[in-house]
Order: sequence, then C-alpha cells, then structure tokens
Amino acid sequence: MGKTRIYLDWNATAPLLDEARAAMLAALSLCGNPNSVHSEGRAARQAVEKARRQVASLVHASTANLVFTAGATEAASLVLTPDFRMGRSPLKIGRLYVSAIEHPAVRLGGRFDAASVSEIPVGRNGVVDIDALGALLDTHPAEDGLPMVAIMLANNETGVIQPVRAAAALVHAKGGLMVVDAVQAIGRMAVDIEALDADFLIVSSHKIGGPKGAGALVSRGEMLMPKPLVTGGGQEKGHRGGTENVAALAGFGAAAHHAQHDLTERNTRIAGLRDALEQHMKACAPDMVIYGADAPRLPNTIFFGLPGLKSETGQIAFDLEGMALSAGSACSSGKVGQSHVLTAMGLDPQAGGLRISLGATTTADDIDRAGAIFATVAGRRRGQGQAA
Amino acid sequence: MGKTRIYLDWNATAPLLDEARAAMLAALSLCGNPNSVHSEGRAARQAVEKARRQVASLVHASTANLVFTAGATEAASLVLTPDFRMGRSPLKIGRLYVSAIEHPAVRLGGRFDAASVSEIPVGRNGVVDIDALGALLDTHPAEDGLPMVAIMLANNETGVIQPVRAAAALVHAKGGLMVVDAVQAIGRMAVDIEALDADFLIVSSHKIGGPKGAGALVSRGEMLMPKPLVTGGGQEKGHRGGTENVAALAGFGAAAHHAQHDLTERNTRIAGLRDALEQHMKACAPDMVIYGADAPRLPNTIFFGLPGLKSETGQIAFDLEGMALSAGSACSSGKVGQSHVLTAMGLDPQAGGLRISLGATTTADDIDRAGAIFATVAGRRRGQGQAA
Repeated sequence: MGKTRIYLDWNATAPLLDEARAAMLAALSLCGNPNSVHSEGRAARQAVEKARRQVASLVHASTANLVFTAGATEAASLVLTPDFRMGRSPLKIGRLYVSAIEHPAVRLGGRFDAASVSEIPVGRNGVVDIDALGALLDTHPAEDGLPMVAIMLANNETGVIQPVRAAAALVHAKGGLMVVDAVQAIGRMAVDIEALDADFLIVSSHKIGGPKGAGALVSRGEMLMPKPLVTGGGQEKGHRGGTENVAALAGFGAAAHHAQHDLTERNTRIAGLRDALEQHMKACAPDMVIYGADAPRLPNTIFFGLPGLKSETGQIAFDLEGMALSAGSACSSGKVGQSHVLTAMGLDPQAGGLRISLGATTTADDIDRAGAIFATVAGRRRGQGQAA
Repeated sequence: MGKTRIYLDWNATAPLLDEARAAMLAALSLCGNPNSVHSEGRAARQAVEKARRQVASLVHASTANLVFTAGATEAASLVLTPDFRMGRSPLKIGRLYVSAIEHPAVRLGGRFDAASVSEIPVGRNGVVDIDALGALLDTHPAEDGLPMVAIMLANNETGVIQPVRAAAALVHAKGGLMVVDAVQAIGRMAVDIEALDADFLIVSSHKIGGPKGAGALVSRGEMLMPKPLVTGGGQEKGHRGGTENVAALAGFGAAAHHAQHDLTERNTRIAGLRDALEQHMKACAPDMVIYGADAPRLPNTIFFGLPGLKSETGQIAFDLEGMALSAGSACSSGKVGQSHVLTAMGLDPQAGGLRISLGATTTADDIDRAGAIFATVAGRRRGQGQAA
C-alpha cells in the first residue's frame, strides 16, 4: 500500500508519452479549424499534416494514402465493407474472411452482414492456419464479388505474430484484398505496408503512447477505397467527414515519431525484461502455461494461465497487490468475458488467461516487483503463502 | 502587424476553454483504458462518466440516453439511417426529410441512399418552411417505413433559429422521428431535449470551447436506437465501439458545464457586442445586407454580404488585417465554396457571404478593432480608403 503501482497493461492502453503530451498542448493552443482558410485555420492544418507525415512514416506509407479516424475501431468499420470504389467505379467485395483471433472490431465484420463473414481457424500455437485460408479461398464464390481477408499482424492477447505476407499472397492470387490490423504491432516490431504486401493497415494512437481517440486507415494506393462511413464536410479527401481532432492527431504523430526512433533498441530491452519475468514466473509456478510461447511473439506480451486461478479473480488479486494487468483484452465496459482467442486455439477458456504487457517506460524494478507479486498470488492460490 | 489577432470565427471552432484544458490534462495523466477493471481503468471510467453527466445536463437529458462519438459528424452518420431498432425489433425508416440549410453532415443523409432523402425548403428569412414540411409529410409513403425529419436548431451560417418544436409535432403526428442538430445552439441558447420534443439531438464539443474530436448523440429514450455505425468491443452499451477518448470527453464535459453555468448572462453580453458591431457596420456600409436579420437569431452570429466584395476575397482581406472570419462554413479542406444556405434562401450566392461569430472571450476591444477593420475593408472596396 502507498507504493507506486506497476502498470503492465500496455496492450490495453499505453501511458501518454511526454512527447505526445507536449505536441497535444501545442496543438490545443491553436484556435483555428483546420478547414478554415485564415491564418488560424492554416496553422491547425499544418499540425494535422505534420502528424500525417509522422504516422505514414512509421508504416512506410505515402501521406497521400492515410485517412485519419477517431481510432482503430472506426478504421476497421470503414474498411470492412462490401462496397468499394476503384476510382469512380463501384467494386463489390463478396465475402470477408477473418481469423478467429481478430479483435472484436474486425471479427464482427464491420459493414458486412454476418452471413458474408467466414472465420479462418487458428492452431494451438496461436498462429492463423494458412492452409485452411487457402482451402477457404479455393471455394470462394467469385460470382458474389472479390474476397477480402483480415488478419492481425500481432494478436492483442498472446502477442503471437501472424503470417500476414503469406495470407496476402493467397488472397492476391484470387484478386482480393488484404486488410491487416497492425494496432498491437506498431512500435513493437518494424511494420512496412509494402513488405507485408497488405492493401490496408489499421493503426491506433493509444497503444503506442499517443492519446486515445486517434487512428488511421492506411492504404497501398489512392484509387481503391471503401465507401465512406462518416460523411460530412469532405475532410480527408472525402473519405472521412468531420472536423479533424487536431490535438489528438498531433499527439499520435509525436508518438509515431517516437515509436520509430529507437525501435530495435527499445524492444530488445523490453524483450529482455519480459524473458526475465517469464523465467521467474515459471520458477515460481512450474504449472503455469504461457499461451503462444512456441510461436514468434511480440517482445512485450505474456499471456498465461495458472491452474486454479480464474481470470477475473486473478486480475483482482494482482490489482489489490498494486499491479495492473488484464484478463485478455479490455473491450466492452468492465466486462471480463471468456477469451475467444483461447477458444480459437482449442484451449479451455475456463482455464483462465491473464495478460502482462510491458512498454517503453517499464523498468527492471517494475519487473522485480511484478515477479514478487506474481509469487505471492501464485502461492496463495495453493494456500502456501509465499511460494518457492 | 504584430498586434494580437482578433478571432471572430467561433461558429467554425471555439478556442479551448481553460477549464476544458485543465480537465483534459488531468485525464491525460490517467493511464488506464476505461474498459479495464483494474484501478487505472476504473479511474478512466470515472472521468468518462463525469463527462457524460455534464453533457447530458446541458441538454436536460438522462445520462442513460447519451452516446459519445468522435464528433457531431459521426453522430449524424449514426442517427441518419433507415435501420433502427425498437428494443430488439427492427424498425424501418422509409424516408429522410432534411432542411435545405442543414450542415453537409446532415444534408448528405448519412446512411440513407440519396433517393430516400427529400429537402425541406427555406424562406428568404432563413427559416425552414414548416408548411412545406407539412405538405411533404402528407405525401409520405407510409408503406416504405416511418418518416424522419432533420432540422437544425440554429443555422451555422446565419445563426437563424429554426421552428424545431413545430416540425416535431408534424413528424410525430405521422409516427416518425425528429432529429435536431443542436451543434451551434448549445451554449448560445437554452437547449432542452424534452422542451424541443426532439427524439435525437446531435451535439459537438469544439463549438462550445471543448476540444475537437468529441460529440454525442443524445436520445429521448433508450429503446429506440439506430443500427450502430462503428462496431467493436461493445462500448457505449453497444451503440459505438472503440476505446473512449477519455481526455477529449473530459474536456467536452468541462466545456458543457461551463456553457451551462452563466448561459443567459454570457449571451446577453455577447448579443450586446454583436448588436453594436452590426450598427457600426451598417453605418460604415449602408448597402450591407445581414442575412436572416428578420428572423430570431443566435446572439453571436452576423452573416453579411457586401456588394462588390466576394466571399473569398473578403475573407483574405480580413485575414490580412488581422481578423479571422469565415466565408460561410468551414467544411471541406480549405475550400471556399458557394453557400448552399444563401441558395436555399433564394439569394444569389455569388453576392458573397461573410460570417462573423463571437464567443465567450470576445471583448469590447475586439469588437472596436473589428469595426475599424470592417471600415477599412468596406471602404477599400470602393476605392475610398477609410469609409464613412
């Protein structure tokens, strides 16, 4: 009690970076509407366009191909639609294939009706089954329109990195579109829209130390775009109406710039802390399971199950000890549901899953203290007091 | 040159209130996701719910009936849809009737196809023609579904206040829905969802001194709601997915609280400044026309035409003299289009329209200086140097 809390729930949301806060404060002092032509308006416009360059740079995209949104969920609802346009011509997407471990924002299928969404299975290691995707696409009814495949680059619960490029090759062979939710990946691994062979990337600000309320849909080109979701004054080249959230975008830009800056060095350090914590956890509780441990993972995520400790109970126990972690993803309000990711991996979600996720300001001391709290909670579970 | 600029474009966007900035800074220090159950998450949730109470209070609505969005444009796209639900039963809206002076976010009809949108004409005084609406509703094809009427409470260009309650009586007599864009009205006049007899209100943060990037759809009840636009993790009771923009909502809440606080006193002062400026302008340029001057107007808006001065030229001239005003609304990026509001009023949009809009921190000195700049610009137009 009284001690500083340990925040290890960065996959839910990251603390705001100082650089992002400073950029936001500067932008909040601009009083103009970025769509006004007067001096105040032009200054606000400059802040938006600077952010566009910074975010585009993080994923190696052209600034011409980035539509700012209020977040990744809106970007997903924007791109997941049967109604596309190639220039001025309508283009029909007949069916959406989503992996079984997508975030609900993607898994619900956006503007597709439920009957037009198919699920791609996932292996026990948490990796999307590419052979199964190939079989699904082989039976795709081309007469209904093109196929669209949506697979996340890294899973939010397990951190497992997905074979996006291989999936893109399959869907492109059928003339279809590849959508990649890169929300958890950016800032934690190099992300390049060209190298991934993705047609669209979905990104978010608040997972990389920018503010909540900003995201983007990044595209490979300018010609092929979804029917707009939010229509209004013609902002974002007509792809997304509404006065731009200048301050949030400025903060997003600053965070993107920071995320790109020392990407490898930062993540090597985080991976070291994560590995040390995992070793300590295994020593404390040899019966612990780390989900997705056999697959390539993000450097910052540990999704684990402790026999005899339910997700909800576990989360509260850690919270009371001063440590914030998550039971799977932080989605609907305050609800701790069963993990659809564990179910998709063929595991029993009743076994419970707890997620520790590290970030840029996580220290070795945080990890030492987290390890001690883990020992307490894991030990108490067996009524042993302090374990091993 | 070197002098402080005069910002008189509050209908485009208002400078951030100190109270809103403080609330945002406090919220930006909360590192949790409001959907997480740990202590950090609960603190973020509290900030969101405080904002909900503050914004609901401003329009005399129940907190249960307020869905936060990223802005008014998103709220418009959410509510303007043929697909409603009454509890769990689908309810079809057959046709949307929008006034000819609505903001593009409403006038474009959201998720209605263009063929399902009818326009309600407007008189030369800038007031929506209620008799014409009655005639339109009398020919509404009930077999296609219920009618929906969307009329703004106050027009963004002229400031003219619209007969929303009378329109609501007409559409309710047909069993339909009344949607009111109250974006320009809140903070400038008393707004009460019950007194207006509206089924839905659309409100925005950044016109009342809150940050950009926040808005809300306020409803009369909880049962009758549009099909969600942005779907994801079940936030906002399933009506709008996506991690809440905690800081922007906190700023919106603080601005709403401030807007409600000294509403009458503040607006009486602003109306006095506005009237003084109008008198001075008329004295300088007797050929000036104030659009909508014969109708009840917001206390802060002057939409005027000066023969011989085009909108775009005029806006630049004022900007160079150090004063920010607007040529109609600040909609699509940097574009100065013809005013659809003037066209709807049966006036020649080529005649030009320039909008001065005042706000909470506008001072008598600002108005004196604006008057002098007006005299310069109006006089120069005739090659007279300083006029009258």
